Amino acid sequence: MTTEVQTETTTPRKRVLSGMRPTGRLHLGNYMGALYNWVKLQHEYECYFFIADYHALTTDYADTSKLKDNIREVMLDFLAAGLDPKLCTIFRQSRVPAHFELNDMLAMITPLSWLERVPTYKDQQEQLKEKDLATIGFLGYPLLQSADILVYQPSFVPVGQDQAAHVEITREIARRFNHLFAGDPGGASVVTADTLRRQLDSLENAPPSHGYSNDRIVREIFAGETSIVDPSSRASGVNPVLPEPQVLLTPSPKLPGTDGRKMSKSYGNTILLSDPEPEIRAKLKSMVTDPARVRRTDPGNPDVCPVFDLHKVFSSEETRVNVREGCTTAGIGCIQCKGWLADAVVAELAPIQERRRYFEAHPQEVAAILEAGNAAANKRANQTMQEVRVAVGID
Amino acid sequence: MTTEVQTETTTPRKRVLSGMRPTGRLHLGNYMGALYNWVKLQHEYECYFFIADYHALTTDYADTSKLKDNIREVMLDFLAAGLDPKLCTIFRQSRVPAHFELNDMLAMITPLSWLERVPTYKDQQEQLKEKDLATIGFLGYPLLQSADILVYQPSFVPVGQDQAAHVEITREIARRFNHLFAGDPGGASVVTADTLRRQLDSLENAPPSHGYSNDRIVREIFAGETSIVDPSSRASGVNPVLPEPQVLLTPSPKLPGTDGRKMSKSYGNTILLSDPEPEIRAKLKSMVTDPARVRRTDPGNPDVCPVFDLHKVFSSEETRVNVREGCTTAGIGCIQCKGWLADAVVAELAPIQERRRYFEAHPQEVAAILEAGNAAANKRANQTMQEVRVAVGID
Ligand code: SF4
Ligand code: SF4
Repeated sequence: MTTEVQTETTTPRKRVLSGMRPTGRLHLGNYMGALYNWVKLQHEYECYFFIADYHALTTDYADTSKLKDNIREVMLDFLAAGLDPKLCTIFRQSRVPAHFELNDMLAMITPLSWLERVPTYKDQQEQLKEKDLATIGFLGYPLLQSADILVYQPSFVPVGQDQAAHVEITREIARRFNHLFAGDPGGASVVTADTLRRQLDSLENAPPSHGYSNDRIVREIFAGETSIVDPSSRASGVNPVLPEPQVLLTPSPKLPGTDGRKMSKSYGNTILLSDPEPEIRAKLKSMVTDPARVRRTDPGNPDVCPVFDLHKVFSSEETRVNVREGCTTAGIGCIQCKGWLADAVVAELAPIQERRRYFEAHPQEVAAILEAGNAAANKRANQTMQEVRVAVGID
Repeated sequence: MTTEVQTETTTPRKRVLSGMRPTGRLHLGNYMGALYNWVKLQHEYECYFFIADYHALTTDYADTSKLKDNIREVMLDFLAAGLDPKLCTIFRQSRVPAHFELNDMLAMITPLSWLERVPTYKDQQEQLKEKDLATIGFLGYPLLQSADILVYQPSFVPVGQDQAAHVEITREIARRFNHLFAGDPGGASVVTADTLRRQLDSLENAPPSHGYSNDRIVREIFAGETSIVDPSSRASGVNPVLPEPQVLLTPSPKLPGTDGRKMSKSYGNTILLSDPEPEIRAKLKSMVTDPARVRRTDPGNPDVCPVFDLHKVFSSEETRVNVREGCTTAGIGCIQCKGWLADAVVAELAPIQERRRYFEAHPQEVAAILEAGNAAANKRANQTMQEVRVAVGID
C-alpha cells in the first residue's frame, strides 16, 4: 500500500522493518522505546510494522487464552499512537507464511552454535525458569526474528541502543546465505562495529536532560542516516538476495515505572497509553521520588528522582527548569511536581486516546486496515521469497 | 482433487501421507520400498504424495545445482511408476507454506531433547561428516517431517519396517499439541508398540521367498488395516486437532545392488527405473553372486546369492523354482540365471518406461498435474492450519 509513495526527489524510499510482541495494552515504555519512533519513521521510510504473534508463543505457549485480546489491543494502540495505514504497512506475522518458509530455509544454513551463543538465550531461560523453554522454538527465536526481518529486504531495522547487538545475528545469517547462494564474497560488514560505536557515543554524549518532545535527537539520528550505511556493502559490487540490514539507532530514553524500576508489564509499575486521566494522576501521585526528600521542607535532587526522568521525556523545558528550581530549594512539594508531570503526560496522551476511542468504535475499519496490511506484506514478502527460491534453485 | 472420491460404501476414505526426497532418477530400491506401495495405496486411500524438496536442503544446502533437475526426474518417476493424479494428490513440499507454518508452531512446544535423542541425528552427522550438518535445520529435520505429516491430519503413514520408529516422534509431538491446546488427556497411544510388534512379527514370519509381484503381503496388510488403528485413541472420546497418525507397515523387501550391498545411490550400485534394457542387462550381468560358486561346474546356494534376492522380488514362482534347482545342481550357469532375472526386471519396467516416455514428451501436462496437486494440497493443509490456529488462539 505504501510502495508507490515516493520522496520528493523520486528516489525510492529505503525500507524499514520492525515488530512488537502482543503483550496486551501498551504502556509509556513501549511507546517511547518503539512506537513513538515508528510514527516518525513512517514519514521518511517505506515502513513495515508487524504484530509478532508467533513470537508470543515462544515463551507463552502454555497459556494462549489472552492472545487474541492482546493482538486486538496492540493493534488499537498502534493506530492510536499514530501509525497511519496510508503511510506504512501494519500486519500480523502469522498472516504472512513467507516468514515461516524463510525461517525454515535459513535453518538449513544456520549453525546451532550461532543460536546457542546468543547472550539472551541462556539468560532468559534462567529468568523464566518457571516456564518450560527448552524447546527448539525458543532456541530458534533469533532465527525466526532474522527471517521476519530479511523477508522484507529492509535497509534498516530501528532499535534502541541496548538492542543494537541483536541485529548482528540477522546480518551474519544474511551474509552466510548470500555467500552460499548468491556468490557474495561475504565480507560486507567490517566497519559496522565502528559505525555503531560512533553512533552510540553520539547518543551517550547528548545532553542528559533533553526533552524528547522536541524531537532533537530523533532528527539528529535521521538526518545522519547516510552515515549509518555501511560503505563496504556497496563497494563489494554484488547485489545480494538478502542485503544485510543496517541498525537504525532510535532514542529509547530511560523510562522508570511508578516504583522507580524500568517500566515493565512484569513489574506492575506501568502507565498505559489507554489509562484514563484519573488513573494516570493517581498512579503518578503514588510514584516514588528522591528518597532523601522526606519532609516538604527538605530540598530534593531531581537527578536521582524517577519522577524527574519522566519530566525529561514529557515536560517542556520551562517546566523542567521550574521543577529543578522548586525541588532543590524546597520551593515546591512533590505532589505539585507530580501534578505538573501528570498534566504533561495527559496532554501527550490526549490525541492518542481520542484516536483509540475512534478505532474502538470502528472495529471493522481496524480489521480492514489489518487485512490490507497483511495483503501488502504478503506481496512484498513473496517477492523476496521468489528471489530466494531462484537463488537456492528451488523455484 | 481426490477428496470427492469415495469408496463404494460412501464412507470417506482414510487419508494417507508420504513423501520422498528428490535425489535424482529413482532406482529399483526406491521403487520397491515406497513407490510400488504408493501405487497400490492410491486405490484404497485418499493419498497425498509429495516431493520433499526442502528436506533435500537439510543435507545438501551447499550444492543445490542439481535440485531442479532432481525434482523433475522424481516427478517423472512418480508418474511413470503409476501414480495417477485422478486417484491421488502429487505435490511439492515447497509449494505448500502450511508445512513451514505448522513446523514453526510445533517448534514452540517441542523439547530440544526429543530431537537430540532421535537415533539418526548423531548417526547421520557422523556418516556425513564431510558436510557441515551442525545446523538447526538438521536438528529440526524430524520436526519438519512431523509437520509435513500432521498438516494433512492423515490416518496413516506408510513406512517400511525399518522406519516404523520414525513415526513415533510425530505421534509424540501431536500428542503434546493436543494435550496443550485441545484438551486431550494425552494417553491415546499406549497399545501402539504392541500392535506394531504384532505387525512386525507377522511380516517377519512370512515365507521368505514370496514374490512381491503377486501382492500377497501387500493385500494381507491392507486387509488387516482396521487392526492397525489404535482403539484407545477412539475411546478417549476427544476429537484432537492433530490426530496421531498410525503406522501403515508396507513391504520393503531386501533389495541388493549389483555389488551385493543394499541398493543405494551413494554406493553406485543401482538399477534405475529409467535404465534402458541393454544397461539393465549389462548391470545385472556384472552383479556379484554366491562367492563359493567359482566355476560353472560348482553348485551354488541361492540363499546367499544377491541375484536370487532380486529373483524373489521380480521373478515368477516358476522361475524361482528353476533357479533353485539349476543353481544347486550346477544345471545352469550364473549368466543364464542373470538373464532370466533381467527378463523379469525388463518386463516389470516396460510399462513404467513407456509412461515415462509419454510424460517426458509432455512436460506441460506434468507441470499442470503438479500445479493442480499443489493447489489441492494447499487447500487441505490450510484447512488443518485453520483448526490449529483456532485451537492455539491465533486465528
Ligand atoms: S519535587 Fe519532583 S523532582 Fe523533586 S523529589 Fe519531588 S518528585 Fe522528585
Ligand atoms: S545361478 Fe543364480 S542364484 Fe545361483 S549363484 Fe549364480 S546367480 Fe546366484
